[in-house]
Amino acid sequence: MGLVVQKYGGSSVADAEGIKRVARRIVDAKKAGHEVVVVVSAMGDTTDELIELAEQVSPLPAGREFDMLLTAGERISMALLAMAIKSLGHEAQSFTGSQAGVITDSVHNKARIIDVTPGRIRTALDEGNIAIVAGFQGVSQSSKDITTLGRGGSDTTAVALAAALKAEVCEIYTDVDGVFTADPRVVKKARKIDWIAYEDMLELASSGSKVLLDRCVEYARRYNIPIHVRSSFSGLPGTIVSNDNPNKPEGGEMEQAIISGVAHDTSEAKVTVVGVPDKPGEAARIFRAIADAEVNIDMVVQNVSAASTGLTDISFTLPKTEGQKAIDALGRVKEGIGYESLRYDDAIGKISLVGAGMRSNPGVTATFFEALSAAGVNIELISTSEIRISVVTRAEDVPEAVRAVHSAFGLDSESDEAVVYGGTGR
Amino acid sequence: MGLVVQKYGGSSVADAEGIKRVARRIVDAKKAGHEVVVVVSAMGDTTDELIELAEQVSPLPAGREFDMLLTAGERISMALLAMAIKSLGHEAQSFTGSQAGVITDSVHNKARIIDVTPGRIRTALDEGNIAIVAGFQGVSQSSKDITTLGRGGSDTTAVALAAALKAEVCEIYTDVDGVFTADPRVVKKARKIDWIAYEDMLELASSGSKVLLDRCVEYARRYNIPIHVRSSFSGLPGTIVSNDNPNKPEGGEMEQAIISGVAHDTSEAKVTVVGVPDKPGEAARIFRAIADAEVNIDMVVQNVSAASTGLTDISFTLPKTEGQKAIDALGRVKEGIGYESLRYDDAIGKISLVGAGMRSNPGVTATFFEALSAAGVNIELISTSEIRISVVTRAEDVPEAVRAVHSAFGLDSESDEAVVYGGTGR
Repeated sequence: MGLVVQKYGGSSVADAEGIKRVARRIVDAKKAGHEVVVVVSAMGDTTDELIELAEQVSPLPAGREFDMLLTAGERISMALLAMAIKSLGHEAQSFTGSQAGVITDSVHNKARIIDVTPGRIRTALDEGNIAIVAGFQGVSQSSKDITTLGRGGSDTTAVALAAALKAEVCEIYTDVDGVFTADPRVVKKARKIDWIAYEDMLELASSGSKVLLDRCVEYARRYNIPIHVRSSFSGLPGTIVSNDNPNKPEGGEMEQAIISGVAHDTSEAKVTVVGVPDKPGEAARIFRAIADAEVNIDMVVQNVSAASTGLTDISFTLPKTEGQKAIDALGRVKEGIGYESLRYDDAIGKISLVGAGMRSNPGVTATFFEALSAAGVNIELISTSEIRISVVTRAEDVPEAVRAVHSAFGLDSESDEAVVYGGTGR
Repeated sequence: MGLVVQKYGGSSVADAEGIKRVARRIVDAKKAGHEVVVVVSAMGDTTDELIELAEQVSPLPAGREFDMLLTAGERISMALLAMAIKSLGHEAQSFTGSQAGVITDSVHNKARIIDVTPGRIRTALDEGNIAIVAGFQGVSQSSKDITTLGRGGSDTTAVALAAALKAEVCEIYTDVDGVFTADPRVVKKARKIDWIAYEDMLELASSGSKVLLDRCVEYARRYNIPIHVRSSFSGLPGTIVSNDNPNKPEGGEMEQAIISGVAHDTSEAKVTVVGVPDKPGEAARIFRAIADAEVNIDMVVQNVSAASTGLTDISFTLPKTEGQKAIDALGRVKEGIGYESLRYDDAIGKISLVGAGMRSNPGVTATFFEALSAAGVNIELISTSEIRISVVTRAEDVPEAVRAVHSAFGLDSESDEAVVYGGTGR
């Protein structure tokens, strides 16, 4: 029985009842003989309430103080969780990110972990304690100031601690049963995936699947830490994310699943730069202007230019929240580049099909487009990687498109073909 | 212009408006040319809410985790206050007790400060910042765990930082205008005291005056740090607590005020051990039993024994909250001591008259008792120190007794005699 890192999100510890339920689950793991390290997020809406308070006292909350404020949230949940465990008769100690040795850079509000030195956690475990660690936070190596890790920070804390402590597995407890072949709110027949490879999970995460963020999966892949995504409510086995399917038969090869799942994302907008002179360096100038404005972009598509005009169009997608910044940045370089106009469209959606198996399976692209066509969905942009195909459509077409594709690849739960195509690998 | 430490209590920073008001007051001090260090408590009811959460998850919250939980409160208020100051265009940084160098022993929930090493605060000031420090908390020297200082901890933090940073003054901002000659809720004619000596303030604090706790005054006296108690709402000058009256005329002696004020306390109960054999060692056995139960007692009175029986009664007062513990402890030693019975009375009150001037003024005790007698108040116990007289009466008699004594010593605000007897020293 080795060391297990468990991470509980804010919805799992939203109130005293939730905290007590989580405490019982943790004690069960301890009783089963594991050393247990728990990473916990702030309770329910605590972080939102703190942000609201900050906005009331200051129009532009500053980085250092904003982090100091937000980290109060996990401090509360971790102390309560340790108390609840102790009242079940087990020893527990809580640790801030700083005490747990989560060392970061100095970029407040979205710091990156640069080292983990879990000496105090190791000592607490050696003394028989369950160690409770605040997620989402660390301490800056240079300034010694408290930092927060930004979105998905608690999951990343858990994986980073699992790596530093050489854990057997990092269990991410959440309010869903695992990773599904599609968003179950859109596709009623979506199936839970028992196992998925890191690379497929990375593509799903960056294509709109909300269960895990790519940052945490990337960290786990680098250190080869298996992640087990599961429900803190049901306690059922969830989805294992790792290099190798743990259920692979002895000595045998399992049939490779072609498709892991279908992800969608309606949080992006599309910018089209119309009438760009088709000569070397123009695209570079456009994307340098975007990068200088610190805007993250996703898909980029350029069509061949019309021979008659020598002009081409360049389209890209980006988070809607960054739309205004991008438009402003491009407006400032219009003279230099000499494009004709800008088009901004935020009524788009993206559907992505992900599966390492598509590498060796011709016909996946054709099946994908046929399914969309049969559903009457018009494709506006296409972008592919080795293990992913993404298309942009009208936002209103997304639900129907996801269901059509999910069904076409035999991912629906009643379908016999799920045995062949299913992301479960069975 | 030197360094000023300002302390703001929870009622001063109860909401966003309060935090912004306090921020303006702090900025005013900075603009006046001071270096400013601010100690802040948790917002309004935050601490009570955290305690309630703890009780929901655990019947007996543990020391270490309870401290971790409670310290989240100041973390929130200090970060918000720093943000509010920054939005007024001034630089501010917030620091936890640990970051500010508040080193304590390891007694969780009521730790004592054993050292203050404010290196980071000094650096922040040198760089032009206003430093905001979490009150009520520190870090254990031996275990490196987070501790809280117990009741009055934020005031003590402020005085300790003022001493370590060699501040000119420690300003304690609260929701009243200063220290009064009696509780203004009981005595309408109570006057604000402009200046009071440490020793009188100590006696008032330990006799029931709530404005400052004796612990903080004792610390200030040891390091000779003047305390200025004042309102965060009105901004008017309040009460200076120090060794020497700052308004003393050049070269001259001011007339010594005889009486500083009248304090009262209805939070205590009286225990009487009836029929104790009047021989050496009996009282010691009684109070050893009480001490072993970790009960703090206040007044102790033993009457001469009746010659006929060889038995005496011993009475003492203690906080009502400790009453049950004391009765249990005495019950366990009844056989060994051989007393007859125990009487417990929690309908008592204590009135204390405090003033260093009474040392050299005969007749104070007589005037005190005459005033009580004229008001028809019966005295149950009497206890005196060099600069204080305390009596125990029925709880219901306390308001009338306080008013009578306040008036008899010319402390009422309309009285001409206040010039002579007033705690102001004028």
